[in-house]
Amino acid sequence: MIPRYTPAEFAALWSPETRFATWLEVELAACEAMEEAGHVPTGTAKTIRELALKLDPQRIDEIEQVTRHDVIAFLTHVEELAGPPARWLHKGMTSSDVLDTSFAMLLVRASDLLVARLDLLIEALARRVREHRRTVMMGRSHGIHAEPVTFGEVLAGHLAEMKRARVRLVSARQEVAVGKLAGAVGTYAHLSPSIENRALAALGLQPETVPTQIVARDRHASFFCAMALVAAGIERLATNVRHWQRTEVREAEEAFAKGQKGSSAMPHKRNPILSENLCGLARVVRAAVVPALEDVTLWHERDISHSSTERMIAPDATTTLGFMLERGARLVDQLVVYPDAMRANLERTGGLCFSEALLLALVDKGRARQEAYVMVQRNAMRAIEGQGTFRSNLEADAEVSALLGKEGIARCFDLEHALRHVDAIIDRALES
Amino acid sequence: MIPRYTPAEFAALWSPETRFATWLEVELAACEAMEEAGHVPTGTAKTIRELALKLDPQRIDEIEQVTRHDVIAFLTHVEELAGPPARWLHKGMTSSDVLDTSFAMLLVRASDLLVARLDLLIEALARRVREHRRTVMMGRSHGIHAEPVTFGEVLAGHLAEMKRARVRLVSARQEVAVGKLAGAVGTYAHLSPSIENRALAALGLQPETVPTQIVARDRHASFFCAMALVAAGIERLATNVRHWQRTEVREAEEAFAKGQKGSSAMPHKRNPILSENLCGLARVVRAAVVPALEDVTLWHERDISHSSTERMIAPDATTTLGFMLERGARLVDQLVVYPDAMRANLERTGGLCFSEALLLALVDKGRARQEAYVMVQRNAMRAIEGQGTFRSNLEADAEVSALLGKEGIARCFDLEHALRHVDAIIDRALES
Amino acid sequence: MIPRYTPAEFAALWSPETRFATWLEVELAACEAMEEAGHVPTGTAKTIRELALKLDPQRIDEIEQVTRHDVIAFLTHVEELAGPPARWLHKGMTSSDVLDTSFAMLLVRASDLLVARLDLLIEALARRVREHRRTVMMGRSHGIHAEPVTFGEVLAGHLAEMKRARVRLVSARQEVAVGKLAGAVGTYAHLSPSIENRALAALGLQPETVPTQIVARDRHASFFCAMALVAAGIERLATNVRHWQRTEVREAEEAFAKGQKGSSAMPHKRNPILSENLCGLARVVRAAVVPALEDVTLWHERDISHSSTERMIAPDATTTLGFMLERGARLVDQLVVYPDAMRANLERTGGLCFSEALLLALVDKGRARQEAYVMVQRNAMRAIEGQGTFRSNLEADAEVSALLGKEGIARCFDLEHALRHVDAIIDRALES
Amino acid sequence: MIPRYTPAEFAALWSPETRFATWLEVELAACEAMEEAGHVPTGTAKTIRELALKLDPQRIDEIEQVTRHDVIAFLTHVEELAGPPARWLHKGMTSSDVLDTSFAMLLVRASDLLVARLDLLIEALARRVREHRRTVMMGRSHGIHAEPVTFGEVLAGHLAEMKRARVRLVSARQEVAVGKLAGAVGTYAHLSPSIENRALAALGLQPETVPTQIVARDRHASFFCAMALVAAGIERLATNVRHWQRTEVREAEEAFAKGQKGSSAMPHKRNPILSENLCGLARVVRAAVVPALEDVTLWHERDISHSSTERMIAPDATTTLGFMLERGARLVDQLVVYPDAMRANLERTGGLCFSEALLLALVDKGRARQEAYVMVQRNAMRAIEGQGTFRSNLEADAEVSALLGKEGIARCFDLEHALRHVDAIIDRALES
Repeated sequence: MIPRYTPAEFAALWSPETRFATWLEVELAACEAMEEAGHVPTGTAKTIRELALKLDPQRIDEIEQVTRHDVIAFLTHVEELAGPPARWLHKGMTSSDVLDTSFAMLLVRASDLLVARLDLLIEALARRVREHRRTVMMGRSHGIHAEPVTFGEVLAGHLAEMKRARVRLVSARQEVAVGKLAGAVGTYAHLSPSIENRALAALGLQPETVPTQIVARDRHASFFCAMALVAAGIERLATNVRHWQRTEVREAEEAFAKGQKGSSAMPHKRNPILSENLCGLARVVRAAVVPALEDVTLWHERDISHSSTERMIAPDATTTLGFMLERGARLVDQLVVYPDAMRANLERTGGLCFSEALLLALVDKGRARQEAYVMVQRNAMRAIEGQGTFRSNLEADAEVSALLGKEGIARCFDLEHALRHVDAIIDRALES
Repeated sequence: MIPRYTPAEFAALWSPETRFATWLEVELAACEAMEEAGHVPTGTAKTIRELALKLDPQRIDEIEQVTRHDVIAFLTHVEELAGPPARWLHKGMTSSDVLDTSFAMLLVRASDLLVARLDLLIEALARRVREHRRTVMMGRSHGIHAEPVTFGEVLAGHLAEMKRARVRLVSARQEVAVGKLAGAVGTYAHLSPSIENRALAALGLQPETVPTQIVARDRHASFFCAMALVAAGIERLATNVRHWQRTEVREAEEAFAKGQKGSSAMPHKRNPILSENLCGLARVVRAAVVPALEDVTLWHERDISHSSTERMIAPDATTTLGFMLERGARLVDQLVVYPDAMRANLERTGGLCFSEALLLALVDKGRARQEAYVMVQRNAMRAIEGQGTFRSNLEADAEVSALLGKEGIARCFDLEHALRHVDAIIDRALES
Repeated sequence: MIPRYTPAEFAALWSPETRFATWLEVELAACEAMEEAGHVPTGTAKTIRELALKLDPQRIDEIEQVTRHDVIAFLTHVEELAGPPARWLHKGMTSSDVLDTSFAMLLVRASDLLVARLDLLIEALARRVREHRRTVMMGRSHGIHAEPVTFGEVLAGHLAEMKRARVRLVSARQEVAVGKLAGAVGTYAHLSPSIENRALAALGLQPETVPTQIVARDRHASFFCAMALVAAGIERLATNVRHWQRTEVREAEEAFAKGQKGSSAMPHKRNPILSENLCGLARVVRAAVVPALEDVTLWHERDISHSSTERMIAPDATTTLGFMLERGARLVDQLVVYPDAMRANLERTGGLCFSEALLLALVDKGRARQEAYVMVQRNAMRAIEGQGTFRSNLEADAEVSALLGKEGIARCFDLEHALRHVDAIIDRALES
Repeated sequence: MIPRYTPAEFAALWSPETRFATWLEVELAACEAMEEAGHVPTGTAKTIRELALKLDPQRIDEIEQVTRHDVIAFLTHVEELAGPPARWLHKGMTSSDVLDTSFAMLLVRASDLLVARLDLLIEALARRVREHRRTVMMGRSHGIHAEPVTFGEVLAGHLAEMKRARVRLVSARQEVAVGKLAGAVGTYAHLSPSIENRALAALGLQPETVPTQIVARDRHASFFCAMALVAAGIERLATNVRHWQRTEVREAEEAFAKGQKGSSAMPHKRNPILSENLCGLARVVRAAVVPALEDVTLWHERDISHSSTERMIAPDATTTLGFMLERGARLVDQLVVYPDAMRANLERTGGLCFSEALLLALVDKGRARQEAYVMVQRNAMRAIEGQGTFRSNLEADAEVSALLGKEGIARCFDLEHALRHVDAIIDRALES
């Protein structure tokens, strides 16, 4: 969470103000549930809400210097503001009831911010998919020309991946939308499941099945995994942009703003810096997965080792991913596409990309697959080494020619045929 | 995948024999679908199946020395066995059609092996939860005595976690149960979605929404995450066993077999080695997550960098987790539990664990929470430092005594009251 | 880098003010070297230094909104302040010349801050080692009582580990104390190795052997590894404190301040929260290693994907480790040790910890090792299960008794003998 | 450690035969040291060495089924072979004395195998550096053309990195060349530092400064870090090969063997599969770092959680890295380089790569840097967008022309000048 990569909504979400306000929300929801259960005088929550409207994070910090305990410092400050009624707060509760329940609320809100941004990326992808449905480009495996595809189809792959990432994120949101008001070691020794149910429902959360002192951390680890999978999808997309923008390829390019400068030394540069930036940030989001998994193993009814980890990785990973999604959506939306360059690159290798059609045509004519392979390969290799074009070599190859004839060879170089299923594929992605 | 940690079924699953047999299954399923579509002469698959019944992994390796391509080596070997009809195999397909589809089949089988073993662990936990529903033990946070729980409740927490882990694993199985028969760059240039559908259905798989040359790797990364979450749950459980078995605690202990020796030097030793072993193996399963996430980002329509990674981490992680689940289930099943020691440890601190009841009783009497806290704390601290018992200190404390009286103090030391909701919690876990 | 875990010196080190000031230092050192080489008018650097004394980070941010390039924004701002002479700045240089050279300076300063704090920890450990040289305690393997050690010896192990960690950190500091003033792709196209040498020497740095556009990132990855190894050592120490403080063990305890509160619910609690905190933070420092290693692989003469990663992990990891070292040193310094409890725990198992002496005595008497093992083990196991003490069992065991006699048995229970080499070990750690 | 990626020497190193033979070496070295110290009858080791010449791993496994302890099983088997004298073995020792000391021996041998292979890679790089010292190629940052370099210089960067990696590996070898013969908890209760010194010296090892039951694991973690840094360097190299081999770039190419097939579908393919394979394997070696760091934190005088981890990651990481180094050395050695293509790519952008020279020339003529930047940038951008060449645009630009004149512009397009320092850089790498 450095200012450079922190959207405003995430800065607000993870601020001390929001943290303490959320703690108070939890305390008051619990208090109201206790009022209904007759454990606490009616009206207590209402009174406190009015008196403790404006919490002072700095004052809480000061108190914590003495108590060395943040929740006690917070409660002490609420007592300062709200006076005697505040003694009913936190009744039968332990700090983690407040911390974990409010953490769940913040993670749910973070998820919602993330899903909203992911939806923008999905929309941008869908729009560009439709736009470039039939924009022909060379498909590449191993960085080497393979067979033709369309740019829309390529983006459709990213679209489908992002939709899968969304399903996982929404499911992980569900996993962390779980609070806990069960007291010191999760036994409701001074509370009850029904009070918990009432309070959590008011906060939009489910109760933990078997609470310990805290909500179980496998839930959070699962959430970090889901975030890393979103980030990995963005990284794949950004890596492809970087490839498309290479000087020798230049099939697509990040938008280059007026006044922008690519390099302090070289005025001619236009670099895919947004995409490179996204690749680097994906590493950061991914790096949160292992500590989150390490946090699962706490001793007995809990230890607090997960806490320092989470104080860092939860704001960091959610915020960084939020930034990545915003930047990713803009990247896709504004990506400058060069269909002519795509076509030119496709044609650069003189039809080598149709070698498989030749292979299959020869098999159809009765040759064993591996024999046919060798026949096609030798003509391709000559072309790659600069001797003739692939097609002229094939025509000049007595064995191939005898089997297929010039016309039969020609029929193999058919772009439309190669791409006849692309629409169906794209529709699957758009509809998935 | 070292022999020491490899259950037989996993050894078989990841053997070369199974690998090549599965490749053949894929080729034949594809061939049959092409037969139905009229692309290949009827009966081809049947003939090949009979002739290529017994593949020879060593022969395939030999051929690969020349071709430097494993699928081509495999196909060449099938041609050796099945002769001319074999030329119809692999028609319009690319290696990854075979590799990824068969990889999906192996991962599905691995998942099934894992889920079956996870179910054994879940059963063992459920049995012990029922057995120790009311076995009282000290709850601990930070390794320090907190408030009472029951051993059944503690195990119920592990049970609920393992059930969540199962949901994720089953969902991840679904994600990887996806094959691909779409040719070189996923365009079905020489195939069709309907052929793919038919073949994959026969193999129990779904088609990839937008194939590239391969099935998208976010699916596999998600599977590795799900495995790491199972492992993390086992690690938490094993860590707790290690704590329970500590000499000073000794509330439960791994079964110690007849003839077993704990240490080569010290004949008196009985160590929680199974649990320590599980903790170590969890690190190995967890370590597969990052490379799996790194594998997502492949260049363009694919590069092959993921392949070497997966050849190592897929057998390793599934097998190691399979071993962990078997060992974990046995650990739970045979765990020797010492209820008397649990009770003795609970009583060791003279009721300090009821301090919260005192705090709340004082609040009920009208004292501010933080004042009440200080009143209870000073009596607890004296007891911890060896001056009197907690209860006698409270009785001797004029301020506390004045508010609660001897009887009011006594009422706070009530174990039954503290545990009155435990059954409800346990039932939630058993029913979840 | 969250305020909670950020010592003031690290906050200053990683502030925008320091960053830009360091950039200017680099530009001016380069300028002065060019002046000496006659590439730039004499006095340029001096003039600029006076005019650009007070850089305004906010103004630089504003300019970056347009240029989308931070170094150009910085240079533009310097031109605003210093006027025409500023055009000589950055001559022949590329942004990375500034960024990587100043990054090296910041990492060197961070290293120095870290080493200073590590030295405090080392001193604290050495002091406590000397203090507890002969404080007897039970040695434990697998959490189970093993054989006696002294507390000083245990701490000496941590001391030796921290000294090794220091060697690595100092060596890693050397690796990153490397700058680069070699222009766009590291060829000195408009510069020269001698200008670089002069400028870097002034800044306390070495030149990169073969620069690309940047300093090679394996250097930085190595630095992050060294930091993670320091953190791992602290984690091991903190974990041991947590074990020592367990209610059932209570051999040592974190200092508990006046006014401190252990739990919001349970006034009796004193938890090892500092140590737990350190364990959690170690995860964060460790998590920076993988992204740092991923950063090594940059495309061609560089891509910028490492930059976003480093903007986050470099301040985070150095600062968090700095905090850990401060906290760790204080933890050791103030650790409350209970020698009586150590002695009591040692004696709790009635001399079981001398089982190896018995085994060896029986071997000396001519018994095969594995036979002797069984003889000792059966008496130990009976004692563990509550039947007699180990010693009385041995005396009552006809076979053992016949071989060793009561006196021979007694001789095995010799604490002084067991610890006769401890001083030598401790001295090795103090002197290493 | 899968057969596909396991060189024979590593298979032998990590075999059960070698493991048990090494254990015996340790036991006998210890025995001989005890003989010299008078603790054990003279000649014992000699007798056992003759009788226990041929250990049977399968028999040891059988015994372990009962004892559940591998070292005891091993000792029992040695007793079977060597009879009564074997009872003197392991005197005063604990299993870890054998395990950790022999592990050190295996890691030292693994290091030696690794360093030997790294030297081959370094030699191959040095040879190609010399060969291509003056082979001009385009330098690229962000995948975009930047300024000229030579191919030899680029390789020199890899060479220097590999030499740094070697220094770290040799230093890490030193760190793990440490054994321990100090008994159960490292106190030499039944041994002595002098016996240990003698035995370890015979085995080529140093003693642990402060042993616990084991050798400290920060040493091993450091070793895994050093391996990951070697792997990262190979990954960077392999990634660059993949870039050079891209169809559109094709400046260098992996050797393509006679009979090799690039794709089962597309006979025209020649893919950089060795390099992609290396990238994938680097992920595996890197993935061992985190578990190795997690292994550092063991409880008290040790727990055994590190053991299962190490049984997997130590053979895996060393072997995989060994394979990578062999493959990497061959890759470099046989890399097919296309200097003409490099030259052609360099010229493709019509001298844009000299934009910095123009910028500096304009600054020399008195223009402010950012003004000059804009003047050059506008002419470069027009060229990139297909309007004129960079040089003709500059000449047609009234403002530029007025300042520099046609000749002044021409002087900026000087390749020799740009590369005048390359030899010096290369020599630094060769000599470092």
